[in-house]
Amino acid sequence: MHSPNPNYQTIVANIFQQAAFIRDLGLELVGCGPGWCESRLAVQPRHMQQDNVVHAGVQTTIADHTAGAAAGTIIPPDAYVLSVEFKMNLLRPGVGEILFCRADVLKPGRQFSVVESEVFAITGNSRKLISKFIGTMVTMPRS
Amino acid sequence: MHSPNPNYQTIVANIFQQAAFIRDLGLELVGCGPGWCESRLAVQPRHMQQDNVVHAGVQTTIADHTAGAAAGTIIPPDAYVLSVEFKMNLLRPGVGEILFCRADVLKPGRQFSVVESEVFAITGNSRKLISKFIGTMVTMPRS
Amino acid sequence: MHSPNPNYQTIVANIFQQAAFIRDLGLELVGCGPGWCESRLAVQPRHMQQDNVVHAGVQTTIADHTAGAAAGTIIPPDAYVLSVEFKMNLLRPGVGEILFCRADVLKPGRQFSVVESEVFAITGNSRKLISKFIGTMVTMPRS
Amino acid sequence: MHSPNPNYQTIVANIFQQAAFIRDLGLELVGCGPGWCESRLAVQPRHMQQDNVVHAGVQTTIADHTAGAAAGTIIPPDAYVLSVEFKMNLLRPGVGEILFCRADVLKPGRQFSVVESEVFAITGNSRKLISKFIGTMVTMPRS
Repeated sequence: MHSPNPNYQTIVANIFQQAAFIRDLGLELVGCGPGWCESRLAVQPRHMQQDNVVHAGVQTTIADHTAGAAAGTIIPPDAYVLSVEFKMNLLRPGVGEILFCRADVLKPGRQFSVVESEVFAITGNSRKLISKFIGTMVTMPRS
Repeated sequence: MHSPNPNYQTIVANIFQQAAFIRDLGLELVGCGPGWCESRLAVQPRHMQQDNVVHAGVQTTIADHTAGAAAGTIIPPDAYVLSVEFKMNLLRPGVGEILFCRADVLKPGRQFSVVESEVFAITGNSRKLISKFIGTMVTMPRS
Repeated sequence: MHSPNPNYQTIVANIFQQAAFIRDLGLELVGCGPGWCESRLAVQPRHMQQDNVVHAGVQTTIADHTAGAAAGTIIPPDAYVLSVEFKMNLLRPGVGEILFCRADVLKPGRQFSVVESEVFAITGNSRKLISKFIGTMVTMPRS
Repeated sequence: MHSPNPNYQTIVANIFQQAAFIRDLGLELVGCGPGWCESRLAVQPRHMQQDNVVHAGVQTTIADHTAGAAAGTIIPPDAYVLSVEFKMNLLRPGVGEILFCRADVLKPGRQFSVVESEVFAITGNSRKLISKFIGTMVTMPRS
């Protein structure tokens, strides 16, 4: 995939730094390239559901935000990305020290892109796929 | 719909009080009955996406948690509810003072229930549907 | 809802008549108005899954096509509608003499609309909701 | 992945042969193994949407049925598989001589499995991914 914006790295850094909920959650950008983005979250007690697994809402926030950033790597400089819909599958209990997310654009488009994210729970050397996201990200002109 | 648990109100209260992420977010139980649940969130700056709308992850957390509680009203006392998958549609910008969520069980089942949630943004007297959720909640035996 | 096309009824009639797979299946237009459409299928043995319920693919075809027609009632004369994604929930066994579908635009939009369809199985006087669809229909300019 | 049924190949063959709608459509089994299944459809004029692309309902039927067969490879002999929900993304126009589908179980489970299908359009030597499906297949005891 190709980025029409030479400064897409800055755009993605801003997507992580300027979102209050993302800073509050503690989600960090790991890296990105044209059509993909990776992020990580150090799991804290406040991220939990009542059964000491990471809440589905936390997993979805990570998957959705990283997907938006992946779509953000391949849009023109005068545009931004908005999630319009997604499906989330919670495959295994969200138990781990770190959540790691990888998002890949499955189908880039001028009007909208389809993006997949996978969320992994990491404990020591073990890494397990815990949830999978597929969503539609629309490209909006910046006014 | 009918609840097989005379204490389902206590179950639902616990679903809200014992989830760390829900307390941290500030989501409050409004009420519930057999097959439904309602909740509300006083919107704070830390809930925002970079463009000053409530983050999709916050909306999803509300929709999913309230859906789980709605499913929790119609399960036996020795069971609990787990989200296995859902779709979220973000219909309008999440701009408001309060987010209100109503979740209804569309199809109850012994193994799993299908639940719909609607999230509304409230500002003064205005109430707008901003997102819609449909998900599968599995009934698990408590060990 | 309002239609920008005074001839939207003709458009919808064409959506049903000009689709080979829809004629082959036997799906008939019942009626439409701005933002909605209804259709029906007389169930035949060839529509079945191995267990003598109507195949999920038949139910989805009905839900998707009727949703596209509902979106088609509110687009300009020089545009057409394309499904980009949907979720289908199969709620009850598809057993009946007639399948009836009602599609309603949940959120109209210039670029795309979100549409919900419900599929009912009818036997004599009994009518049961058997499946529910929610999908994104994009508006494309006719070249 | 492992199959608890030594005769799973026969089960899958039956899944294709005993479904009236699948025979009517012309969908053929290509092959299967524990956790996966492949199928193909020779595209005919009657499979079309009005714009001479294969109807989304045909693509969904292929994706869903092949996913059910993939789940069917890893269930006990006295069980069968039922689709309860899925999401379908239509990524590119369904134009080709042959549609080919590959379904893989993403997460096997005792109660239900999550399965992904990809549908490709083949014309001569060209093969394009045209749609992607992710769905939940429940395992039911045979009565």
